[in-house]
Amino acid sequence: MKNVINPFGTSTIKDYEKLFKEFGVSRFSKILPKMPDPLVTMRRGIIFGHRDLEIIVDAMNSKKKFAVMSGIKPTNYLHIGSKMIVDEIVYFQNHGGLVYYSIADLEALVDNGLPLDESRKFTYDNLLDLAALGIDLKKARIYLQSEEIKVQRYAYVYSRNVTNNMLRAIYGEHPVGIYMAALTQVADILLPQIEHGKMPVVVPVGFDQDPHIRLTRDIAKKHGLIPPASTYHKFMCSLTGVDKKMSKREPQGIIYLNEPPEVARKKIMKYAFSGGQPTVEEHRKKGGNPDIDVSYQYLTFLEENDKKLRQIYEDYKSGKLLSGELKQILALKIEAFLRKHQEKREKMRKVVDKFIASQGFSA
Amino acid sequence: MKNVINPFGTSTIKDYEKLFKEFGVSRFSKILPKMPDPLVTMRRGIIFGHRDLEIIVDAMNSKKKFAVMSGIKPTNYLHIGSKMIVDEIVYFQNHGGLVYYSIADLEALVDNGLPLDESRKFTYDNLLDLAALGIDLKKARIYLQSEEIKVQRYAYVYSRNVTNNMLRAIYGEHPVGIYMAALTQVADILLPQIEHGKMPVVVPVGFDQDPHIRLTRDIAKKHGLIPPASTYHKFMCSLTGVDKKMSKREPQGIIYLNEPPEVARKKIMKYAFSGGQPTVEEHRKKGGNPDIDVSYQYLTFLEENDKKLRQIYEDYKSGKLLSGELKQILALKIEAFLRKHQEKREKMRKVVDKFIASQGFSA
Repeated sequence: MKNVINPFGTSTIKDYEKLFKEFGVSRFSKILPKMPDPLVTMRRGIIFGHRDLEIIVDAMNSKKKFAVMSGIKPTNYLHIGSKMIVDEIVYFQNHGGLVYYSIADLEALVDNGLPLDESRKFTYDNLLDLAALGIDLKKARIYLQSEEIKVQRYAYVYSRNVTNNMLRAIYGEHPVGIYMAALTQVADILLPQIEHGKMPVVVPVGFDQDPHIRLTRDIAKKHGLIPPASTYHKFMCSLTGVDKKMSKREPQGIIYLNEPPEVARKKIMKYAFSGGQPTVEEHRKKGGNPDIDVSYQYLTFLEENDKKLRQIYEDYKSGKLLSGELKQILALKIEAFLRKHQEKREKMRKVVDKFIASQGFSA
Repeated sequence: MKNVINPFGTSTIKDYEKLFKEFGVSRFSKILPKMPDPLVTMRRGIIFGHRDLEIIVDAMNSKKKFAVMSGIKPTNYLHIGSKMIVDEIVYFQNHGGLVYYSIADLEALVDNGLPLDESRKFTYDNLLDLAALGIDLKKARIYLQSEEIKVQRYAYVYSRNVTNNMLRAIYGEHPVGIYMAALTQVADILLPQIEHGKMPVVVPVGFDQDPHIRLTRDIAKKHGLIPPASTYHKFMCSLTGVDKKMSKREPQGIIYLNEPPEVARKKIMKYAFSGGQPTVEEHRKKGGNPDIDVSYQYLTFLEENDKKLRQIYEDYKSGKLLSGELKQILALKIEAFLRKHQEKREKMRKVVDKFIASQGFSA
């Protein structure tokens, strides 16, 4: 069978092509052979693009200092899609990268209207997930934007490098607070170099975040810093459809990392959009469509064994595997993952408490 | 003689009237009788307007907690015109006000392009003047914007209360950094209430600063704080003309507080714009014009004795006092002031060193 597995929704392929052709993003597949022990998301093209990742490969291979920088708006609990990004941060951490992680409460304030003290509620829970997923809180530089004067101060410094026309061209017309948050994010991304001097930094982002990366690279050059490298990943879709983004307004489409495992299992069995045929008879005859089957799509993120995944793909496509059975595979996988993850979360409470006490912020 | 002394240039009277009529600023003359031991600048209408100063009068009289808030961009040395504002701060301090003073280095950065570390050079010298003019550094809350996370953080908070249209209407079209600085200034003005809870605050400003005051009062209301009171003063003109503002580009028009006293004296004798007649004979006959004579104008700020000032006015107007003699009066007065002031500055070095060490910022 020559048919190459295409494990992803095809709806946004055009956007990705635009990044390659118009914005100078490089294909991840070309650098993949140089990545040590690549993650499934790398091997399967979920991480599909990058900028300047060569400098990070070089740093990893030659044991030079480098950093991986990421962050989150503390507006919610982490979900199964957030896991992918944290896994990537942990990957770079385990290959020698210094972890910088911004809890973007100022952005949550100006963008979502979330008061700073309410951000703190999610911060504690988010930290439990980060620690349980493998980020070493003792070594990582994790901070709240509202408590880190350097990123705020440098937002003013970098404001000198942008015009209103640039900001409007990049982000569209927004209230001034949104532009302030964008400049603060530039400072977040450059903080490793502000604190350690020039060094390679990689920022794992969704492909829609490239404007931030371009702006930051531009400003980095003006300040004699190394333009940050980046990786671009596709998004995990909502449980209810491959073309739907996860959204708080549709909670049945999201699996949170702190959700009771059996609830998650039931959610999948009940809501996961299926690529199967209306009847068992028809399914056996025509086969299912893994490209639009969310359970299959999720497995491309979660099933690390390539052979197993390929078998599932072929069995589903041929009609041997029924939609309910495919859902069941995912449901059990996620239930088992959550059970283990949540045990780790409990074990990490002390570490998180200690971390928060050491930072001097309440959460 | 019924002629009322009008000690000021008349060029901007129209602007002041606009503040009264269109913007709801109150005339200072009406509240003057309630001010304890008013300053010459109050008695002579140099401080000509106010908003809500009743709440400060009430606080002074009933010994209630209140604050006086001001600040400066650390882009230069203080000059003889800056003295007037510091005198007003000291006035409110001595009547029970807590002093808040923002060294606006972030504003100097975005507005003047002055790097933060260069601001520090002026900061030390500015602090010497503040201390020598009577601000109690042990009690005052003086801070650098770039080092005070609260004013930066609240700039984001308050950004939620403004639209781009509001900012453009108030300030005109500016780069985003200027708007950030404006919001930071709002946070500066509200900092006494952020730190102490609701309390009356007075902000002494030049009449051109009213847009900041209006914006801050508006935002204060939205956050359940007391809209700050304000006083409005006219500006001391350049030595070279009553209609000219002091400007760094014309150093012969400015007398700095750290300038050698004899240099200041010579500057006055050489450059002070005169309201006298071309020849002594003509002057004796027609008399001089104190309204455009800068030496006379400066004396309205500096000669505290009303009788003496009135005598000078009348003698100059009648032609009895020659322009050179009038210059000489000012020159000696300023030379004596600077000599004394600079002695005080030297004595204050230890206090300033101690203050800077306690703040943990380098200057």
